[in-house]
Amino acid sequence: MDLTEKTLSSETVYDGKVVRLTKDGVLLPDGSESFREVIRHPGGVCVVALTDGGDVILVKQFRYPHGKVLLEIPAGKLEYGEEPLECGRRELLEETGYTAGKFWYLGNMLPTPAYCGEVIHMYLAQDLTAGEQKLDESEFLDVERLPFGEVTDMILRGEISDGKTQLAVLKAKAFLGL
Amino acid sequence: MDLTEKTLSSETVYDGKVVRLTKDGVLLPDGSESFREVIRHPGGVCVVALTDGGDVILVKQFRYPHGKVLLEIPAGKLEYGEEPLECGRRELLEETGYTAGKFWYLGNMLPTPAYCGEVIHMYLAQDLTAGEQKLDESEFLDVERLPFGEVTDMILRGEISDGKTQLAVLKAKAFLGL
Repeated sequence: MDLTEKTLSSETVYDGKVVRLTKDGVLLPDGSESFREVIRHPGGVCVVALTDGGDVILVKQFRYPHGKVLLEIPAGKLEYGEEPLECGRRELLEETGYTAGKFWYLGNMLPTPAYCGEVIHMYLAQDLTAGEQKLDESEFLDVERLPFGEVTDMILRGEISDGKTQLAVLKAKAFLGL
Repeated sequence: MDLTEKTLSSETVYDGKVVRLTKDGVLLPDGSESFREVIRHPGGVCVVALTDGGDVILVKQFRYPHGKVLLEIPAGKLEYGEEPLECGRRELLEETGYTAGKFWYLGNMLPTPAYCGEVIHMYLAQDLTAGEQKLDESEFLDVERLPFGEVTDMILRGEISDGKTQLAVLKAKAFLGL
């Protein structure tokens, strides 16, 4: 069966700072009509930054939708016209102060394909040099370093919840043959 | 530094079939005020269903926000008052027709903690019995079986994009010691 849904109409119901929401009329595979609510998102990048000593650079941030501080890898949204690698370099520098000599692409992930167009590109960064954080206004986060093996153990024990952090670290583990 | 943000107000700006969006006024850690746009979501469950012969049960679905058919593990939203395990059993049955004798919890993931409250619970299911799909109205999907090793290879080669599928399969791999 051809599973394709065709767009019949599209209406922006909310256009905010982070979230743009459209309600689209669609033609379903069986010829009936329905609608889809879609969060539009510019896409994002996350970076597993690994020091020569084998530590991962992490950030602790209050995540308002969950009402708690989460431990995550550095990440951020693509700016208009920005390449994913460029975004990865920028976010790593802004959030942690680190620059990296080498970046390896770990593939992408669609965090919530049912209702959101976001694509997150994942990178491994090595050959790091420490520097100064350059946080955006109204961005508050603490930087933390943990051994790579401890981070993977925390993921497998369920102690790190963020999806992109879990996936990118496990993909980095496979990539590095660890 | 205490990174906590306090809620000052909350306004529902859209309340739809799948997506509810609120715009909340917040007090930031430095005492200034800002707002957060938050997608409210009931949470979901996904299941890595593994046959005795070592195949994974997958579903192919058209994902409208990405305009293409994706290969994913069975998954769905929690209904009101439903336990995650119960939801996993229900979605596995509805989408694929399979029932499972054993379920193992693989932890949870927050797919997009910056702007969405969704939590996805991940399970490994074994001891499977095949049966009839019971799809919701306006749900169209094809069921596919692939060897577990082939699915993990596809993930590491970047051929499966869905985040929950990539993460749950890699966690199942570690859990099973494969």
